[in-house]
Amino acid sequence: MGSVIELLKSHRSIRKFTTQEIAADLFQDLIDAAQAAATSSFLQGSTIIRVKNPETRQQIAALAGNQSYVETAAEFVVFCADLKRAGNYCDEYGKAFEGDYTEHFLIATVDVALMAQNLVIAAESAGLGICYIGGIRNDPAQMVNLLQLPKGVYPVFGLCLGYPDQDPEVKPRLPTSVVVKQEIYNEEGDKAAIAVYDEQVREYYRTRTGGGHGISWSEQVANFLSGKVRPHMKEFLAAQGFKFK
Amino acid sequence: MGSVIELLKSHRSIRKFTTQEIAADLFQDLIDAAQAAATSSFLQGSTIIRVKNPETRQQIAALAGNQSYVETAAEFVVFCADLKRAGNYCDEYGKAFEGDYTEHFLIATVDVALMAQNLVIAAESAGLGICYIGGIRNDPAQMVNLLQLPKGVYPVFGLCLGYPDQDPEVKPRLPTSVVVKQEIYNEEGDKAAIAVYDEQVREYYRTRTGGGHGISWSEQVANFLSGKVRPHMKEFLAAQGFKFK
Repeated sequence: MGSVIELLKSHRSIRKFTTQEIAADLFQDLIDAAQAAATSSFLQGSTIIRVKNPETRQQIAALAGNQSYVETAAEFVVFCADLKRAGNYCDEYGKAFEGDYTEHFLIATVDVALMAQNLVIAAESAGLGICYIGGIRNDPAQMVNLLQLPKGVYPVFGLCLGYPDQDPEVKPRLPTSVVVKQEIYNEEGDKAAIAVYDEQVREYYRTRTGGGHGISWSEQVANFLSGKVRPHMKEFLAAQGFKFK
Repeated sequence: MGSVIELLKSHRSIRKFTTQEIAADLFQDLIDAAQAAATSSFLQGSTIIRVKNPETRQQIAALAGNQSYVETAAEFVVFCADLKRAGNYCDEYGKAFEGDYTEHFLIATVDVALMAQNLVIAAESAGLGICYIGGIRNDPAQMVNLLQLPKGVYPVFGLCLGYPDQDPEVKPRLPTSVVVKQEIYNEEGDKAAIAVYDEQVREYYRTRTGGGHGISWSEQVANFLSGKVRPHMKEFLAAQGFKFK
């Protein structure tokens, strides 16, 4: 089972898939593996919507920023944080629903991510490739319409699954010294280590795109954090019942 | 590699560990596997604090609700969402930091969860057991003090790791029909399926505790969602720079 660690280390997103379908019993296995992930307070606050309808796929691909593999992947699923399923039982037991605190949002979102990552690893172990689609949050209200999501449920991300028709390189990650700290948070040495890493990332892009942008990690993330990223999310989430009390 | 799916399905939390240490090269492997997880917008918004100091462990065990295995596990790490590391580079490139939107909180939190789950699976594949410790959010301000976390960083959860000294049962999960929906969100049949599942959960508790509380899933989650769970989180997160704009 040492190879599980090698499998994990070999992850890269796949954005081009063959037309091969995923067998029904394998898909069920992926779901079972997903559901076995840890869940905070036993909430099981995740719902998966499996989208087969080509028109829905097309609309999602478009709103996610023209990500065509949403249409072409063998499977496309949307992971939703779901407080409604459990919340229904507050009524049942004569209790007032109070599940609109920041903590509830956090717990349900983490539940979803743990479950999704289990599904991803199960899929990759079976030779499938995956790509997370955060782009569904570009227009989450439209996702709510398309998938008929009630209050208490929000779409966290999509996931494309299929047999890979490409073999991209693994993208280099930050040095361990930068990411893992001993006892306390401490930035000593990080700047120098990140400078070396920035060069690695530039090289990765130069090689991959054949003389492309060659942008460093630090510049990418500075660009990202200096932009107003999906500023509609707060209002959207409040409308779905996630009120950040 | 079919056994990866069996490994995933066999997950259960471990709360009693032997005194055996985790070898340094295995620990590094776990970290490498963790870092290989997908990261939104290449942000890599996670930092792991590895806590060895017994006094710190003791304080964390206490604030997490007297979870003694935080003290006794071979390793205890805290997963933090980290927008500071990347945010530092806004200054560097002369850009204004705007990373305090709800979306940034979401992205960093999901990054942490995906990375943690990779670490968990790597660990379990090597015969280790784990237990997530959401209880560190009982007193996140004290966690900030203990780990000297700066603004832009918050502790999402802890993780105990070690060689298992117990062999608990796998806890039953909701039926697939309840968790996986076709095309749209649809609750048809859920109530009946959950009633059957509730009985399974009652039985699980009765067996495990030798005639214990025997509480159903629906009653547990109704209790959970009718309580004000960690109502300090919003204010705490705002103080750490996560402003939910």
